Amino acid sequence: MEMRTEVASLGEFGLIDHLTRNNETRNAGTIVSVGDDAAVIDQFGRQSVITTDLLVEGIHFDLMYTPLKHLGYKAVVVNLSDLYAMMATPTQITVSIAISNKISVEALEEFYEGIYAACEKYNVDLIGGDTTSSKSGFVISITAIGEVAPDKYVKRSGAQKGDLICVTGDLGAAYLGLQLLEREKKIFLENPGVQPDLQQQTYLIGRILKPEPQAEVVEWLNEKGIMPTSMIDVSDGLSSELLHICKSSEVGCVIYEDKIPVHDDARNIAMQFGVSVTTCALSGGEDYELLFTVRQEDYETISRNVNISVIGYVTEKEEGASLITKSGNKHQITAQGWNAFA
Amino acid sequence: MEMRTEVASLGEFGLIDHLTRNNETRNAGTIVSVGDDAAVIDQFGRQSVITTDLLVEGIHFDLMYTPLKHLGYKAVVVNLSDLYAMMATPTQITVSIAISNKISVEALEEFYEGIYAACEKYNVDLIGGDTTSSKSGFVISITAIGEVAPDKYVKRSGAQKGDLICVTGDLGAAYLGLQLLEREKKIFLENPGVQPDLQQQTYLIGRILKPEPQAEVVEWLNEKGIMPTSMIDVSDGLSSELLHICKSSEVGCVIYEDKIPVHDDARNIAMQFGVSVTTCALSGGEDYELLFTVRQEDYETISRNVNISVIGYVTEKEEGASLITKSGNKHQITAQGWNAFA
Repeated sequence: MEMRTEVASLGEFGLIDHLTRNNETRNAGTIVSVGDDAAVIDQFGRQSVITTDLLVEGIHFDLMYTPLKHLGYKAVVVNLSDLYAMMATPTQITVSIAISNKISVEALEEFYEGIYAACEKYNVDLIGGDTTSSKSGFVISITAIGEVAPDKYVKRSGAQKGDLICVTGDLGAAYLGLQLLEREKKIFLENPGVQPDLQQQTYLIGRILKPEPQAEVVEWLNEKGIMPTSMIDVSDGLSSELLHICKSSEVGCVIYEDKIPVHDDARNIAMQFGVSVTTCALSGGEDYELLFTVRQEDYETISRNVNISVIGYVTEKEEGASLITKSGNKHQITAQGWNAFA
Repeated sequence: MEMRTEVASLGEFGLIDHLTRNNETRNAGTIVSVGDDAAVIDQFGRQSVITTDLLVEGIHFDLMYTPLKHLGYKAVVVNLSDLYAMMATPTQITVSIAISNKISVEALEEFYEGIYAACEKYNVDLIGGDTTSSKSGFVISITAIGEVAPDKYVKRSGAQKGDLICVTGDLGAAYLGLQLLEREKKIFLENPGVQPDLQQQTYLIGRILKPEPQAEVVEWLNEKGIMPTSMIDVSDGLSSELLHICKSSEVGCVIYEDKIPVHDDARNIAMQFGVSVTTCALSGGEDYELLFTVRQEDYETISRNVNISVIGYVTEKEEGASLITKSGNKHQITAQGWNAFA
């Protein structure tokens, strides 16, 4: 009998590891390959950074509550976020789409308005793509290219024992925004007469529908001459990203629950929903903040930036990854981030 | 009432033109943008060429008769073909896939075997990608990156009156191979006991299932110092590609039916199917040959390469694009190439 292994049994990262375990590099210009936020290629001393993301209707977005303009904007942002996570400056994107016949030209115009708005804001050129039809949902594939001064990119793998763990902005809000939208969708489907009441929750809704990449923080770090030892963007949740850094850097970590930055609106809605806001931050995802590590001597400078929180420190690999709760208990961190195959 | 324009009313190229009509270029490094086989970006004097293709199950391939290894190989090849059509040398690819739960890990391994085989043959590195799930079919998005000496890329737009029109290899075979596979599929579905009999047709089947990009011709042109004035790869059929060159170069053209290169197997099977083999060459697509124009002084050198056929010449724009049939009649060429939205 032919063997059949379900993809879900490996998960996204296990699958990627499995399929690329024998991947070889043939070109001297390939500097960073599979396994980071983006790849780095060298072209005669100048370095380009490349990343790509595939968004599928019904998996990554629900057109029932996602305006197409926001979707176009966000599809660009999630790629730019990967470039900033390498400390690169985005320069170009390609956009490929597969669309079913339920999508009209006017709908696509709205989608491209969002694409162009993101390009304008982040000074990026749309240079190509592919357009085709789909028998079912809307599929978006974007590849983004950026540049970085030679060897000034930051990988996931440079964190060292004693480094400080930092995160930008706040976490968990996008996940709670999504829960609000899902709740309103359910109410609407059960009773189409009821108008959604989301005006009080513009922050949380904005975080899920129109995220921004952390361009300013990267610029600020460059200005201050701080070179993080490792960096990743928070797309799948803090736990998952911390474990990526620990695995790539072969280190452990300790973070403190009371240091994890959370917005007041997130705290309030989490309470309403009866969930722990810390769990939302750890496992929610889609925040598009940056998680990075810096040397201890950078603490004073880092602490002056109100947009950056120091949430813990890097330890020996053997100590694993742990969270110290507000009550002082120590919990092992496990990846419960978003898994498309779950 | 909200206006609704169907995408099919514009077609793929009309849609792309429409959506990118206001596209702006902000980065000095963006040299060639939307509207060619690939984009060109400059990084401090060195030029990279970027292209991307999206393949959707049920639109571009049928898993019933497409072995996954061949699919992986072909998905890379169609992108490399776009790079060679710019006279660039492929260096890296990213591969993103969305898969439904009917695809097992073993099936994906086969698919990646094909990807790696193409990478090995064409000396290309797989540097990244994205892997996610799909609620319906298998979706493949590949972006390929290549390099070219400064300003040595060839666009669609340089053809001039009097230039010779050349095509590599032979045309129409991939389309006829597809018709054979579709016929066998139909027979199998009606009578699952019947074994397909395709052993006599390895050439045509090979052309549709395992095409190769025209690396050797590009190398030969470079060696001989021939710089084509325009170039495009034949993915949608000769008619469609000729019209692209005419439109981009603002010229017309005349081609001769009896000069269009056709393989004997294609001629025989076309006769069996009762279709004109010339129509297959003009409108079939998926041949991944190169169509290009050269100056008349290059004729002698070009004519020594048995893999290149001179099929006509470039005229003034006002004369349009026409085909002189074997019987001496003149027909206007219209695009009847493949349209995903038809």
